[in-house]
Amino acid sequence: MSPTKPRTMPGVMELLPREQELHRDLMRRIQEGFARFGFVPIETPAIELSEILLTKTGGETERQVYFVQSAGQLEKGSDPELALRFDLTVPLARYVAEHEHDLVFPFRRYQIQRVYRGERAQRGRFREFYQCDIDIIDRDELSVRHDAEIAATAASVLHDIEIGAFTIRINHRQLLRGLLEQAGVADVSSQSDLIRHIDKLDKIGPQKVASFLIDGGMSPAAAETLLRHTATRTTSHDEGLAVLGDLADGPAGGGAESLMEVFRVLADLGVPEDRYCLDLSVARGLDYYTGTVYETVLDDHPELGSISGGGRYDDLAGQYTNTHLPGVGISIGLTRLFFQLRDAGLLPYERAVLDAVVTLMDDDGLSYALEVASLLRAGGLRVETHMEPGKIGKQLRNADRAGIRYALIDGGQERTDHTITVRDLVEGTQDTVPLEKALAKIDKG
Amino acid sequence: MSPTKPRTMPGVMELLPREQELHRDLMRRIQEGFARFGFVPIETPAIELSEILLTKTGGETERQVYFVQSAGQLEKGSDPELALRFDLTVPLARYVAEHEHDLVFPFRRYQIQRVYRGERAQRGRFREFYQCDIDIIDRDELSVRHDAEIAATAASVLHDIEIGAFTIRINHRQLLRGLLEQAGVADVSSQSDLIRHIDKLDKIGPQKVASFLIDGGMSPAAAETLLRHTATRTTSHDEGLAVLGDLADGPAGGGAESLMEVFRVLADLGVPEDRYCLDLSVARGLDYYTGTVYETVLDDHPELGSISGGGRYDDLAGQYTNTHLPGVGISIGLTRLFFQLRDAGLLPYERAVLDAVVTLMDDDGLSYALEVASLLRAGGLRVETHMEPGKIGKQLRNADRAGIRYALIDGGQERTDHTITVRDLVEGTQDTVPLEKALAKIDKG
Repeated sequence: MSPTKPRTMPGVMELLPREQELHRDLMRRIQEGFARFGFVPIETPAIELSEILLTKTGGETERQVYFVQSAGQLEKGSDPELALRFDLTVPLARYVAEHEHDLVFPFRRYQIQRVYRGERAQRGRFREFYQCDIDIIDRDELSVRHDAEIAATAASVLHDIEIGAFTIRINHRQLLRGLLEQAGVADVSSQSDLIRHIDKLDKIGPQKVASFLIDGGMSPAAAETLLRHTATRTTSHDEGLAVLGDLADGPAGGGAESLMEVFRVLADLGVPEDRYCLDLSVARGLDYYTGTVYETVLDDHPELGSISGGGRYDDLAGQYTNTHLPGVGISIGLTRLFFQLRDAGLLPYERAVLDAVVTLMDDDGLSYALEVASLLRAGGLRVETHMEPGKIGKQLRNADRAGIRYALIDGGQERTDHTITVRDLVEGTQDTVPLEKALAKIDKG
Repeated sequence: MSPTKPRTMPGVMELLPREQELHRDLMRRIQEGFARFGFVPIETPAIELSEILLTKTGGETERQVYFVQSAGQLEKGSDPELALRFDLTVPLARYVAEHEHDLVFPFRRYQIQRVYRGERAQRGRFREFYQCDIDIIDRDELSVRHDAEIAATAASVLHDIEIGAFTIRINHRQLLRGLLEQAGVADVSSQSDLIRHIDKLDKIGPQKVASFLIDGGMSPAAAETLLRHTATRTTSHDEGLAVLGDLADGPAGGGAESLMEVFRVLADLGVPEDRYCLDLSVARGLDYYTGTVYETVLDDHPELGSISGGGRYDDLAGQYTNTHLPGVGISIGLTRLFFQLRDAGLLPYERAVLDAVVTLMDDDGLSYALEVASLLRAGGLRVETHMEPGKIGKQLRNADRAGIRYALIDGGQERTDHTITVRDLVEGTQDTVPLEKALAKIDKG
């Protein structure tokens, strides 16, 4: 029987160990950053009841849902009662509603898990990918200051993962609606349609957006004024406050005043002013957002698009509870970011998958080799040992290929002298030292 | 419209943040332990092609598979092409076969991910749970010394998670087959059947196993001799070696000699002799295993059953490649273990979900409070801040409820003096110190 070709379905992430270690390191940095800002961890099941996951309205992402059936259910041919989560927001809503009485509000949670979407297979589209989300939820009311906390946390985390300069572009839905009202669009649902067009400014350019606005009933002059507004992108904290101060007097006043508070708190939180700006073109497609909205771009690589986005929403879990639960959150699409950075050669650091390898040249050396390994492990190092003797050249080549920097070598004399030869495979140097000094010769990767 | 009741399907794991943090800490310790022994991380997709996941033979676990279909595929009514992994071994086999030419052998990998099984819902049965697996795979041949490495890694990790004394019970399939041969069962497939009965010794007792053996054609005398053998459980390293030495001369000789080497290397690896024993009743149900087999029990809580098990197998990925890939591995069922320990009150440590909370008594104090928080965060602490002023009593009560030990309080004077009051909510003490000394007052949780 010829073997089944080993392969995965398209659009899923799978890495070799060295890259997996790097991915884990990225994730660990993000997670520690979230925790430093007071976010606490939750995890939810990948499989939820379809009834919980799918609302009656049915957005674009809901059409991409993967349904799940056990073998037994499949045989019966009944409608699937289970599905895989397609984001971390619906599960959060269900979680908060379900555990409402056990949670302390405002509830700050981080969640780093995979989500699943039945996307058409194409480059850069993932069917299974990690999202890293933070949200702050309160009952009844949530201070706009938390909108600054969310942006400050994202700024801190994006700094920690060392992917270069970035800017969190901030806007406010009420401010955008105010500008549309000023341009003569008073109807809320027409406003929502036009906001979806403004969201495409980066992709299709102002000319095309202008024609959509005019098709939508706006006068060419009003469209021009509106697009002049949305071209605003400030370059300093004070400029941001000044522009918002001017807008605060007009129909966009409410949103502008909220953003002024967000800007002030961002400064109090110590976020450098070149890490955020007011950008009146930021819209976010989803109807879901009702206040502050964020998009983040890498300054030197705008072609990668938004690497993180989110915003303020009015009521998290209206479909599951009568408690009013306003919230604000941001999401980093880790898998997409990881592959983009990798493919663009922008992953800025190496991380060793293991720290050291203990070689073995003859069977009599096994006990001593394992003693060496135990000593290094007790010092916190990640150590591979050769369990069967072999050619030293091959053992060193394999270590180098696996990305391990240090090899510990006992040629026979070392075990007699209670010493060990530490070879640095990167520098190509080596040194024979008393066994108890070996640990100090090794830099932890 | 009345709200949809927020709930999950039965048999999935969901924790409140404090327990989630504890679970994360357990997982982190396991992972670091694996890495210290030279295992490298991989992750595989939760969704695999059904064709890959399901072999023609169809074992018990395969009947529990969850199939996955996109909305579009479901409408078409075609057979599902996708399924969720039910263990981490089949995906490992596919991974090694697929990436064979990019891996360094012997390939030591750890994998900590969720697996999915369409189990009937009942207490203690999970449909979605974490497994923590290590395996060592080589091409053509894999030294039996690696069987010791696997057990030593498990011993180290189980020590690090501080769940009390445990014993890794070790046996060998060839040794069991030798004993069965001695008892007159020469046919390999009859041996396999009887091994499955011996595997139930702990659950159903020797009387019932004896009657199965006799029903299977064994003479009562031979069954009695066999059961006397399988009652062997050694209590020291030397006793283990002695028993194996005796067995090495009989039909169980090959297995006994392998285990002698495993025992010797375990000692060289520094595993304390009360952490492992030779236990001739260990069988493991699966046909899959061909050599060393392991089961681990908590010494003071045998009622929890095996908390970790595994063994040696002949050929990992025969269905995907013509390369012969022998391997050895062990698995910790983390989710089950976590819930068992929790329900038995055996989780031995607390882990704070956050280190400190910065309270806020009036709006004018916001800048100072955020400065305090930034300072603590720069020191690596996990800090929550109150963004709106409120009653100090309520702020402290909420912190305590969330499991946070330290509250930093500025009553007005502190910001003038550039000091801060650090209150220990566990001890009920407090101290006002210069701001730059605050960090030193706080024990990291």
